[in-house]
Amino acid sequence: MQLEDIFKQIKPLDENAQAVARTRQDSLIKPIGSLGKLEELSVRLAGITGDISASFEKKAIVIMCADNGVYEEGVSASPQVVTLMQSMNFQKGITGIGVLSKLAHSDLVVVDIGINSDVTSEHFLDRKIRKGTHNLAKQPAMSREEVLRAIDIGFEEVRKLHENGYSVVGTGEMGLGNTTTSSLVLMALTGCSVEETTGKGAGLTEEAFEHKKNIVRRAYDLHKPRADDPIGVLEKVGGFDIAGLVGVYLGAAYFRMPVVIDGVISAAAGLLAFHLCNKTQDFMVPSHCSEEPGYAVAMKRLGMVPLFNLDMRLGEGSGCPLTFLLIDAAQRIINDMATFEQVAMDNSKMVDIRK
Amino acid sequence: MQLEDIFKQIKPLDENAQAVARTRQDSLIKPIGSLGKLEELSVRLAGITGDISASFEKKAIVIMCADNGVYEEGVSASPQVVTLMQSMNFQKGITGIGVLSKLAHSDLVVVDIGINSDVTSEHFLDRKIRKGTHNLAKQPAMSREEVLRAIDIGFEEVRKLHENGYSVVGTGEMGLGNTTTSSLVLMALTGCSVEETTGKGAGLTEEAFEHKKNIVRRAYDLHKPRADDPIGVLEKVGGFDIAGLVGVYLGAAYFRMPVVIDGVISAAAGLLAFHLCNKTQDFMVPSHCSEEPGYAVAMKRLGMVPLFNLDMRLGEGSGCPLTFLLIDAAQRIINDMATFEQVAMDNSKMVDIRK
Repeated sequence: MQLEDIFKQIKPLDENAQAVARTRQDSLIKPIGSLGKLEELSVRLAGITGDISASFEKKAIVIMCADNGVYEEGVSASPQVVTLMQSMNFQKGITGIGVLSKLAHSDLVVVDIGINSDVTSEHFLDRKIRKGTHNLAKQPAMSREEVLRAIDIGFEEVRKLHENGYSVVGTGEMGLGNTTTSSLVLMALTGCSVEETTGKGAGLTEEAFEHKKNIVRRAYDLHKPRADDPIGVLEKVGGFDIAGLVGVYLGAAYFRMPVVIDGVISAAAGLLAFHLCNKTQDFMVPSHCSEEPGYAVAMKRLGMVPLFNLDMRLGEGSGCPLTFLLIDAAQRIINDMATFEQVAMDNSKMVDIRK
Repeated sequence: MQLEDIFKQIKPLDENAQAVARTRQDSLIKPIGSLGKLEELSVRLAGITGDISASFEKKAIVIMCADNGVYEEGVSASPQVVTLMQSMNFQKGITGIGVLSKLAHSDLVVVDIGINSDVTSEHFLDRKIRKGTHNLAKQPAMSREEVLRAIDIGFEEVRKLHENGYSVVGTGEMGLGNTTTSSLVLMALTGCSVEETTGKGAGLTEEAFEHKKNIVRRAYDLHKPRADDPIGVLEKVGGFDIAGLVGVYLGAAYFRMPVVIDGVISAAAGLLAFHLCNKTQDFMVPSHCSEEPGYAVAMKRLGMVPLFNLDMRLGEGSGCPLTFLLIDAAQRIINDMATFEQVAMDNSKMVDIRK
């Protein structure tokens, strides 16, 4: 689909359904507002689906896996084959995201969108665009056509989920070098400095961290990516994983599903989707507060506060299953709690504790 | 049991089990420390139970329900009968805590430890000490004997849970006026001001809030409760619910179960248990960040940071079920994730991504 057509088809939140949800929340047997963000979340879910009693039972996390050419500059401490290895491990249920997904009864859609390997696997979908992007320290990471293709891949995965009855989606990624690309994307979109957006990723020595920041600084000066051209930002300094996740955010908004933001890479993709089409923001749900500094930058721009403080920095989509549980909680609150009116039928003396 | 005997029997965390847990966390296929507090939590759970693979399947929240004599000073906006009504509703699964407990497969133990009513109910246990405390604005809330009895009631409920195979416990409460008592308990234990510890509870007008603070100030000046006499603090300005929860914290530490702190009342009881026996702190797990200002005061003293930011202020134990889910998550991470060594058996080229 053409991007402009997608943007046009993304409708705002359903205000009527939100009003119904808000009225119901205020009629439940608790002081008004006392369930805080669980109440707000239930109102937003109603706005997304148009129905306060929509089910969010079928859950999936789309994990975009890709390598980044900038890896060759030494921005990561781990061997590049880790991207492939972890991508093969996700569906086995033995990684962080695998274990947490089981807990939340969530499925995983693992997508090879650009792993630097010829290996195919029953454990992931083959949507490989190319075996990793170009080295952005020297040239644009990808062509405009590749950006659009990556976005389309993400969008189409959400379409399939929608067609298969899934109603909530999470964003995950795997790819060495992708805190470097995220940092650059965030710098381009926000004007923040390399210090504000760059962290140690999976773990770097101080020296390697300084080196990483130098690479980021140099790449930024080379490309001068501009916030008013988000596709150009992806082209110059993005990754296949980030572009694919942009497609996931667009797909979620298009098919009216809440979409959970994980860590800094996922948040960078979310902010990029927001720059493409600001209505996407209404469909995003933050999860945990990542330890990576760029995460806070993205959240601030999106006007969001994370729901968990878990000092996590794993990626893979690992914040999503826990947030799915909060979505379940919000949905049960609004549907299963009694109203003052209902309680009045049981008790001869009804008392309103809403004040 | 005598309090001194309980204190003596509370043993520190099992350092060997914690070392085993830490070693295992560092061997799992993720960057070291990247699951943040879920890793720390799993280490602490091992220290509590002595076994990294202990099950936390059977979960219960003890909800202490009691009225407070200070209610007659007009510190609450709701009719006092709400304490009784909500106490009868918990087991019906229609309140906030009822709904959230179901989600987390947790049971509720609802204890009438001092509701101002002659009504008995199949929906709660009758452990009534008295029909509400005395008005602490005029006299001590209870006798020393009553304090000890309330603590014993909480302790014995945890003993029963332990004997019935429960392995994790949450703290809940219901009782109009109990943000007033909590405020006073926190002032006594921390030396903080009425402004730092007092909030609007279930919802007060500005005028009523000023009045509440005046009552707190006056009661504090009347009793001059002292941090070095925690039992005296409960006697003078506590409530049956808070004292009962102190017993729950002591019981959890004694029977080596993690115990989840909910909001400000629960946190005040937790801090009081800590003042009685500082080893209890090792068994406490924070949950959400309550909107009540006293909550932050208690957390700071306990050296804890809440796991959720949900802007909740419902009480009832409503933060506990969500935290039970995080305990499950932590426990699954440490038990179900693969180690690098295990993965090496599957992959010819093992790569260590721990760096």
